[in-house]
Amino acid sequence: VSPAENEPPSPDPGARFLTEIHEQPAALARVLAHEDEIERAAALAVARDARLIRLVGHGSSDNAASYGIYAFGLLPRWTAMRDAITLTVHYDTPLDLSGSTVIGLSQSGQTPDVVEYVARARAAGALTIAVTNDPTAELARIAELTIPLCAEPELAVAATKTYVSTLAVLALLAGHIAGRGAELSEGIRRATDQLAEVLPGLERAAAAIALPFSYTGRMFVIGRGVEFATAREIALKLLETCRIAAEPLTATDLAHGPVAALDPLFPVWAIASRDATLAPVQEAASRARAMGATLVASGTAAAELEGAGYVLPVPTPTPQLLSPILSVVPGQLFAWALARARGLDPDAPHGLAKVTLAR
Amino acid sequence: VSPAENEPPSPDPGARFLTEIHEQPAALARVLAHEDEIERAAALAVARDARLIRLVGHGSSDNAASYGIYAFGLLPRWTAMRDAITLTVHYDTPLDLSGSTVIGLSQSGQTPDVVEYVARARAAGALTIAVTNDPTAELARIAELTIPLCAEPELAVAATKTYVSTLAVLALLAGHIAGRGAELSEGIRRATDQLAEVLPGLERAAAAIALPFSYTGRMFVIGRGVEFATAREIALKLLETCRIAAEPLTATDLAHGPVAALDPLFPVWAIASRDATLAPVQEAASRARAMGATLVASGTAAAELEGAGYVLPVPTPTPQLLSPILSVVPGQLFAWALARARGLDPDAPHGLAKVTLAR
Repeated sequence: VSPAENEPPSPDPGARFLTEIHEQPAALARVLAHEDEIERAAALAVARDARLIRLVGHGSSDNAASYGIYAFGLLPRWTAMRDAITLTVHYDTPLDLSGSTVIGLSQSGQTPDVVEYVARARAAGALTIAVTNDPTAELARIAELTIPLCAEPELAVAATKTYVSTLAVLALLAGHIAGRGAELSEGIRRATDQLAEVLPGLERAAAAIALPFSYTGRMFVIGRGVEFATAREIALKLLETCRIAAEPLTATDLAHGPVAALDPLFPVWAIASRDATLAPVQEAASRARAMGATLVASGTAAAELEGAGYVLPVPTPTPQLLSPILSVVPGQLFAWALARARGLDPDAPHGLAKVTLAR
Repeated sequence: VSPAENEPPSPDPGARFLTEIHEQPAALARVLAHEDEIERAAALAVARDARLIRLVGHGSSDNAASYGIYAFGLLPRWTAMRDAITLTVHYDTPLDLSGSTVIGLSQSGQTPDVVEYVARARAAGALTIAVTNDPTAELARIAELTIPLCAEPELAVAATKTYVSTLAVLALLAGHIAGRGAELSEGIRRATDQLAEVLPGLERAAAAIALPFSYTGRMFVIGRGVEFATAREIALKLLETCRIAAEPLTATDLAHGPVAALDPLFPVWAIASRDATLAPVQEAASRARAMGATLVASGTAAAELEGAGYVLPVPTPTPQLLSPILSVVPGQLFAWALARARGLDPDAPHGLAKVTLAR
């Protein structure tokens, strides 16, 4: 891995990324301050009985969508899916979208195929909701309703506070649809306090373990259930800021082939939650250890993974399905510290712009 | 990457894998011989109006499910999704499955969480269909209907003929639901002939380009639309047989972060189809080239990717949505040749068993 090229060197590489990681509790508090808009969107989805949730987004937004599948499944017990944008936008397939709520996720509100998907979905009868950090952007103009992320400007290319804010919006929306809005709102408030409390310690812990990974070229990041979104998001941070070929896998998918690629120089990051997915994540961690892979354990049940070389636990929120708001943070901080250790600037990775206009 | 350890050396590493790659046309022909069962399943889905398709499987079966999303979307214009097994099986969430067709995909018919998901889905009112190479296995006993893959025993750990047979079953099922069964059946028959015709040349071409990748540790495999399934399946073959950290990405997702990890030692395999997804795949290929990555171009429109170092085209079938039956084969053959070049036995990768019982 060579250092980033062609960018003017920053006097303090990663300063924006780190600042924004620390701004996450404040960003979460601002989501709660806009709960009215979320409650209105929930009421409309219920009134229209639009109970098939179609989530669309790319990058971190798509990772948050993986969380949405569980938030809507566990709270109102509605089916949610990451919909196939290509089917609608590129293949021009008219689908029957009556009975669907479409949630377009885009930090910038400009992602072209997400905007176009939402426009077509609205014309096809779906309830359309934009979740974006720029409520003046095209996505918000095109959707019937907008839920602003209110994360304030995010300047580092790698998303952090807009990701956790999107998780909170999805959990609150699902909670209000289920008639459990107050419980979720209170849960996010407590998780926000927990996050603020543990952030300084997590920063020290993540920085301390980053150095041994300076020469790592490949990693798997394992999670299941609500934490699969976390696995995807941590892998993306490692790819874009540290140039590690980090691949997210469910605990079970690891055993269906990828485990064969592991060796002592191919570490595995496993996110363990104190819920019904703990046993399969433990099983996956043992398989990884049996291949000689170094194991980093994180999540609310990090201590339950035997043989981990490094442990980065986070507190358990209530309700537990909010754990991804906390469990992504050790991965963000690890990526920040490791990028610096590798001489890279996580604020401005080579080859990326903050607003991605790829179709 | 070190050679596989702890396995008795095979006199002819990869012989089974290569034999089964060449058995794919025969396996496809056997799917067509069982078209009656597929037609009956389609008629039942239509009669019950069970038009939300929920696909479940792991590994290659899950990759085939990615194809199902497009087969059902493009042919009957029904919404299909890879459902969240964890939500039902681990989190024990009762969902309303009336109006759903559940398709359980498992070569062995034994994958525990797929079997349990299908059992619960049937109890919850879904039409349940097992697609398996062992119609005497648990999955077939538990589902209302079974479509046998009829691929004959698959002995190499890495799936090949059961993968393309599953693609054919899904395309035929979607075709019969759409009232276009004869067209799809004829299309698969022609694609089978095309595959048989090009296989010897593809084997020579893939073997010739494998050697320069002997020291490759990381790769991205890019596809979009119908070919995203191919990208996932080729990446899985490279992971399990060559121990390469190969990650599948949609053409658009590459730009949303992962592109930053590329460099001249991090090659990209791109699958280009002569359809509406060609432009985004071309754009992704240019981004990869701009980062200095070596490009392998495959698919029906391989010749349309500028700057490719290696080109492995396949013929264009009719209808075009059948292209994944052909386009996966260069990846299988490349994985076979590269595994041998690296001193690995693709028939029996270290750490894997043919039947995966991980939960």
